[in-house]
Amino acid sequence: MVILGIDPGIATMGYGVVEVDKGEFTALDYGVITTSKDMSAPDRLVKVAKGIALLNEKYSPKAIAIEELFFQTNRKTAILVAEARGVILYSASLTKARIYEYTPNQIKQAITGYGGADKNQMQQMVKILLKLNAVPKPDDAADALAVAICHGQTGKFQELARI
Amino acid sequence: MVILGIDPGIATMGYGVVEVDKGEFTALDYGVITTSKDMSAPDRLVKVAKGIALLNEKYSPKAIAIEELFFQTNRKTAILVAEARGVILYSASLTKARIYEYTPNQIKQAITGYGGADKNQMQQMVKILLKLNAVPKPDDAADALAVAICHGQTGKFQELARI
Repeated sequence: MVILGIDPGIATMGYGVVEVDKGEFTALDYGVITTSKDMSAPDRLVKVAKGIALLNEKYSPKAIAIEELFFQTNRKTAILVAEARGVILYSASLTKARIYEYTPNQIKQAITGYGGADKNQMQQMVKILLKLNAVPKPDDAADALAVAICHGQTGKFQELARI
Repeated sequence: MVILGIDPGIATMGYGVVEVDKGEFTALDYGVITTSKDMSAPDRLVKVAKGIALLNEKYSPKAIAIEELFFQTNRKTAILVAEARGVILYSASLTKARIYEYTPNQIKQAITGYGGADKNQMQQMVKILLKLNAVPKPDDAADALAVAICHGQTGKFQELARI
């Protein structure tokens, strides 16, 4: 099963595409979609939406896992990021994938077994779980891979619970 | 010129469609699009996006004026409303209309000449400017009409400034 993980953002949105097969994870793709402050708000949102549409076209994920926002101290940034996350959720809902949302704590718990894990611990576990030679860069891409892995580890129980 | 004004929201989004001709305003339509807490976040956003698309189809506005968010004290609500506003901006950008954003203060200034006007003063001015028999209800629809009128009054100067 292919899972698309998303770390929402407006200046930088991280994405990670992970294949999960019998509990083994493989990274198919990861990276970031960036938009410039010089672009209008609608143009930035259109670029984010196109990014999701292209990733869906290329990988046809069965699940799209999106990190929930924790509240940022900068009000202006918090609103811009939430606006982008709305467009990400909406764009995901136009695909055939099922949509899942995870809090930062749920993701940390799933990856490291500890909800208070720091960034370095998270990145090392992502590297190990995906059998990569180095920590994936940039940080937002690593975060997005973590969201995808989180769904691969916990989503199966959600599915079982529905049977 | 037809202007679509939007008061962003997730539980209740206000809309107001106003025709402006030689400084005279006429209300063509106004109301709210509501979504239930029982719906999933993506489903709520899809309903908001469809609402914008339907209003665009019906009235082909030349301008879509959207109120900017001021920061709310309730974090969860602020994020949900901002997510909806992102989808509204994105949906507006898929139309042929030009998009304009106004702060609450700019709207109050344009309608009443006073940036600190209260809700009652605003609603009375909307009623007078649109020559209605009563204050338009619900409040979110009146707010959206105010955004549209604000653009009708200030947008022409923006256009002139571009010549």
